[in-house]
Amino acid sequence: MASSLHLSQALLARAVYLDGSNSCCSDRVSLSFPSFSGLKSHSPCKVATWSSGSRRRGGSSSVRATAVETLDQTTEVSLVEKSVNTIRFLAIDAVEKANSGHPGLPMGCAPMGHILYDEVMRYNPKNPSWFNRDRFVLSAGHGCMLQYALLHLAGYDTVQEQDLKNFRQWGSRTPGHPENFETLGVEVTTGPLGQGIANAVGLALAEKHLAARFNKPDSEIVDHYTYVILGDGCQMEGISNEACSLAGHWGLGKLIALYDDNHISIDGDTEIAFTENVDKRFEALGWHVIWVKNGNTGYDEIRAAIKEAKAVKDKPTLIKVTTTIGFGSPNKANSYSVHGSALGAKEVDATRQNLGWPYEPFHVPEDVKKHWSRHAPQGAKLEAEWNAKFAEYEKKYSEEAAELKAIITGELPAGWEKALPTYTPESPADATRNLSQQNLNALVNVLPGLLGGSADLASSNMTLLKSYGDFQKNTPEERNVRFGVREHGMGAICNGIGLHSPGFIPYCATFFVFTDYMRAAIRISALCEAGVIYVMTHDSIGLGEDGPTHQPIEHLASFRAMPNVLMLRPADGNETAGAYKVAVVNRKRPSILALSRQKLTQLPGTSIEGVEKGGYTISDNSSGNKPDVILIGTGSELEIAAAAAEDLRKEGKAVRVVSFVSWELFYEQSDEYKESVLPASVTARVSIEAGATFGWERIVGSKGKAIGIDRFGASAPAGKIYKEFGITKEAVIAAAKQLS
Amino acid sequence: MASSLHLSQALLARAVYLDGSNSCCSDRVSLSFPSFSGLKSHSPCKVATWSSGSRRRGGSSSVRATAVETLDQTTEVSLVEKSVNTIRFLAIDAVEKANSGHPGLPMGCAPMGHILYDEVMRYNPKNPSWFNRDRFVLSAGHGCMLQYALLHLAGYDTVQEQDLKNFRQWGSRTPGHPENFETLGVEVTTGPLGQGIANAVGLALAEKHLAARFNKPDSEIVDHYTYVILGDGCQMEGISNEACSLAGHWGLGKLIALYDDNHISIDGDTEIAFTENVDKRFEALGWHVIWVKNGNTGYDEIRAAIKEAKAVKDKPTLIKVTTTIGFGSPNKANSYSVHGSALGAKEVDATRQNLGWPYEPFHVPEDVKKHWSRHAPQGAKLEAEWNAKFAEYEKKYSEEAAELKAIITGELPAGWEKALPTYTPESPADATRNLSQQNLNALVNVLPGLLGGSADLASSNMTLLKSYGDFQKNTPEERNVRFGVREHGMGAICNGIGLHSPGFIPYCATFFVFTDYMRAAIRISALCEAGVIYVMTHDSIGLGEDGPTHQPIEHLASFRAMPNVLMLRPADGNETAGAYKVAVVNRKRPSILALSRQKLTQLPGTSIEGVEKGGYTISDNSSGNKPDVILIGTGSELEIAAAAAEDLRKEGKAVRVVSFVSWELFYEQSDEYKESVLPASVTARVSIEAGATFGWERIVGSKGKAIGIDRFGASAPAGKIYKEFGITKEAVIAAAKQLS
Repeated sequence: MASSLHLSQALLARAVYLDGSNSCCSDRVSLSFPSFSGLKSHSPCKVATWSSGSRRRGGSSSVRATAVETLDQTTEVSLVEKSVNTIRFLAIDAVEKANSGHPGLPMGCAPMGHILYDEVMRYNPKNPSWFNRDRFVLSAGHGCMLQYALLHLAGYDTVQEQDLKNFRQWGSRTPGHPENFETLGVEVTTGPLGQGIANAVGLALAEKHLAARFNKPDSEIVDHYTYVILGDGCQMEGISNEACSLAGHWGLGKLIALYDDNHISIDGDTEIAFTENVDKRFEALGWHVIWVKNGNTGYDEIRAAIKEAKAVKDKPTLIKVTTTIGFGSPNKANSYSVHGSALGAKEVDATRQNLGWPYEPFHVPEDVKKHWSRHAPQGAKLEAEWNAKFAEYEKKYSEEAAELKAIITGELPAGWEKALPTYTPESPADATRNLSQQNLNALVNVLPGLLGGSADLASSNMTLLKSYGDFQKNTPEERNVRFGVREHGMGAICNGIGLHSPGFIPYCATFFVFTDYMRAAIRISALCEAGVIYVMTHDSIGLGEDGPTHQPIEHLASFRAMPNVLMLRPADGNETAGAYKVAVVNRKRPSILALSRQKLTQLPGTSIEGVEKGGYTISDNSSGNKPDVILIGTGSELEIAAAAAEDLRKEGKAVRVVSFVSWELFYEQSDEYKESVLPASVTARVSIEAGATFGWERIVGSKGKAIGIDRFGASAPAGKIYKEFGITKEAVIAAAKQLS
Repeated sequence: MASSLHLSQALLARAVYLDGSNSCCSDRVSLSFPSFSGLKSHSPCKVATWSSGSRRRGGSSSVRATAVETLDQTTEVSLVEKSVNTIRFLAIDAVEKANSGHPGLPMGCAPMGHILYDEVMRYNPKNPSWFNRDRFVLSAGHGCMLQYALLHLAGYDTVQEQDLKNFRQWGSRTPGHPENFETLGVEVTTGPLGQGIANAVGLALAEKHLAARFNKPDSEIVDHYTYVILGDGCQMEGISNEACSLAGHWGLGKLIALYDDNHISIDGDTEIAFTENVDKRFEALGWHVIWVKNGNTGYDEIRAAIKEAKAVKDKPTLIKVTTTIGFGSPNKANSYSVHGSALGAKEVDATRQNLGWPYEPFHVPEDVKKHWSRHAPQGAKLEAEWNAKFAEYEKKYSEEAAELKAIITGELPAGWEKALPTYTPESPADATRNLSQQNLNALVNVLPGLLGGSADLASSNMTLLKSYGDFQKNTPEERNVRFGVREHGMGAICNGIGLHSPGFIPYCATFFVFTDYMRAAIRISALCEAGVIYVMTHDSIGLGEDGPTHQPIEHLASFRAMPNVLMLRPADGNETAGAYKVAVVNRKRPSILALSRQKLTQLPGTSIEGVEKGGYTISDNSSGNKPDVILIGTGSELEIAAAAAEDLRKEGKAVRVVSFVSWELFYEQSDEYKESVLPASVTARVSIEAGATFGWERIVGSKGKAIGIDRFGASAPAGKIYKEFGITKEAVIAAAKQLS
């Protein structure tokens, strides 16, 4: 509607807005062009400038440029600038030494990074895990030297000078992208674009949930912000739109995302592929949007924007910070060449010249060091104050305090596993998705950190917690999360929840086949050690009529191949309970539960203990560990194996039936145990699973037979497809007879 | 900006807009409330109504409601309504008979479906593959009975009455979601939400590209629209935002998407998870947006909106059509219960009552049948006219006609494979990603349908076609597509391009690990038989410092497990050329090329012919098909296997080295051939691949040894990681000695 706003107009509009009046607030506006002293020793920076009108998109939006207000900020501008340049050169030097990395983002984002870590955020560098800390996520993870430099200056022990010098080297604590499992002080694992902003939505959800659940009128015991820096790449990824749509829907007012609007991505100017109006999109998603036009040196603009963002309580805020990638590099700034490569010795020198930086590589000037040194004592003080507050809280609200403590520490309540339901062969046949719901509803009563939901399939995935309402903007204390049809965002949000506090046990759900939509997030769960529980129903052709687009085939194999994932496919009630026990205990690796849509018999011989071993014998009429044949099944096909065994035994065969619910757990058992289940001497082995046979040779051996499906599924009633695809008792019996 | 617009205001605004004046065009506005005759035999429909103000989002947007203009449309309203109800009841009856399916969408979308297929679209039902047809995509694929009913009425032979009665049954042509490979007349395969709208972007891109390349001032030989119906679920998925952002960027003016705004998804009212302003988001993405407030009976509104959309040439159009899911069902309309289940006999009866439908199940009233019968002759005429036009075109522009014909028919130019580059062991060592670029640039000269690009990694994936410019809004004749950081959208867009015409050979690229972002689209490529070429570089820990977030581990295994995918991992120049030969020839299955970032030696013994067999011997000093040991490698590890063989041979061993570039192709060979490469009697087999060992037992057998990586990667220089992870010549030699 409004046409392109010139800076002055924007400021005017902004001033009006702040005042709530129509009179121009001239003294405020007069602050809009502060003259920075900069460093006196050098000529003005040669970085190209351009008029925002001709170059920048977003002019047609209604987004206001931020007004300039001075925060309670007393640091001299010259020292700020020196600190900012320290950050820039730590990044430049580390990338140069490694001859690998991404200097462009840290050089452009150093000002906002400085302001966040030095002026805005509350944290304790000597205890990076302090519960009530502000969270920071570098969604544009390739710019990790920004974060390492900031952690270094702030006094985190994990990033010392030697670590910066070991950037991207074997065994270092400063890997090529931020990894929470390598570097204390890094909250999540980023690099794959868009994951970080979605993680941040999860972190902010976690805070809002805990605050609503545990804060009291006289004690705001949970109270922190979540800050993000994201780039153009994050913005283009669909996952960020999914997560940000939810953040707007949920009104996550303490989520503040700084968008590094540098107009450059790897392929060059973003004009070649990214001309949408980001501001307007975020407004459409229900965010508050602010534009900082000068992110390179507009310190006060950045401060004012953050202040404004914090004042907006009912919406997340996107601060679009227009920066120059590689700011300070006279020949490479504002080009893709500074994005992902070392500057090279010559350009490093030129940048030192240009920014007036006389120091050796990795040097932190004394005044900068001294300035930052306050964070260790200040952080200790913040934590001590909070601890005292919590002690008070505990006295008054002992029950709530115990719950919160469990979430903070991750300690599982004693005897929690007694809540798991048990079943007998006489229990009614049921779909494991329904049995899963019984487990969830039993566990939520004993696990204070359990919460989650489905990607718009709650009534199919059977994930509703019946004694809780929906986590929504105005009911954030509730524990049913409604993700909408946003699988990828859902997974990454759950990673954020899981990494917020060790006692969170997030679960999320969709049809198993749609793990394809969220695979990148599941992989990050595995890598970043987030114990998310993936409740994946409709796990085979057994879903029937929806057909091949909805029928997983290769998915079990594809997750068995993925490191640090527990792929579980329970066969009945006891195994579903066992799968939940495993999933809850394993807080450092995600569990994927593949669950049936269709009813399954409760089988004799299944057990929670068996599931914990991954593979185990559920029935056997052989002796001396020498069955004629071993039948191996998982999930819905275990009952087929059991039925085949019954028939074979009638014909005089010695048959063992093995449930192979989790390959990973089985291969973690002792050799003796494995031999007791799958004796090497018994090569007559038949497996049956309604999925790809890929990988089954590991179990059945070269002489065994894997019955499975190595084509896409079909649309028809489930029983018909099973029969047509040969996933039948008869097929097992025939194979067993052939082998034994 | 603008406050909530009431209908009359919106119409006024619209009228002003159309006139380009400020005077209110009252006669036009007076058309805004046409009184439909409806069916006289029944009382007014009991479907709940609500005030748009309280119920609907989007009120704060600037989107105009569409004005009502009568198209050149002479069908009586009563007949239109009868046709619309025919569509509704065909859907109701088929779902009822199958006792499975989704009646809600067809009942709500029948009016727009009718208008598209009966009044707007150009097609030839007797030749569903006629090149210049309008394309239609049902992105909300679960509503497939809408499309089947329309194809049936329009006279497509693939959907006859018996097919409707066989809905969702084994072997039918009417599966549970639209599948192009089952049903001629269905363009793409949908169901997984968001894929369809992204496919449609690809279809529209294809049209825009061909039109720019082949149309002449005197002959518009390429000229069709792409229509889509998508729902709330599609809108929530990140992939749709990715694809629609690109559609806006590219200015795909002939893409018209009708958004079934029914406010209901599986979990209930979309208010629980989806409150963003979709209109505004699409405007931000550069789309023209129109709102049809009454999609249930507002035929003229729908017509006017489509007319307006067609008039907007430089932007794609989103028509938000507000409908009632399950329209006509007195007790289930406007609730999730009508989304995905049969209505049940009682409610079917009540709906028949309510809509005044006295007919038997599956009945098409004679007047409706007669009305639709004109499409067969009209379609034949359209095609005949186009054929005549093409004959003219061919006379004048023989060269262009030949190219276009190749794209239309999919026939590869004779001798095209001669363009493939060849290499000798003396050729310089190079990364296979660079060798890939040599192939792409050679092939683009001989394959008129080759086009593609990267998800913002063109300079890393090495995918630029050097003799072409960028496909952009104003240069759509070019062949380098810039997808931005949107892997998922990219894959689905390429599926759309590939299915537009058999001669299109779309390729797309990112880092191999980021196939995780686009896995759902790759699976659809495989299922829908789109021969997309996936150029996936940085295919292992060999990428080095970027670390585990960027290093694929399980990806080779995960695609080997996926049906109908060719997973190729070439080792050098000849194998890269071979991989391209395979990829180009296989037009009905996608090929994934895993390519190295790092330099690889050109190996003796590699060949294009070898690659075509999937696995083959590259060197052997044994005789009688009895080597002491077989060393098996793929891609960058083949040179390690070769080097190990050299050392072992020096020690007197008879060693065969096998390149296993594509498992799928190998297992398609004759038993004799397979035995000649991997003789059953030789169990001493060592494989080496910088990826998960999962699945390798199939190749190396129970007695062999698979060297690989079953953990996540690490951030360090590549050589260091190879060494630390034991992906070395020494490890191969040690394993070989142990086994032989």
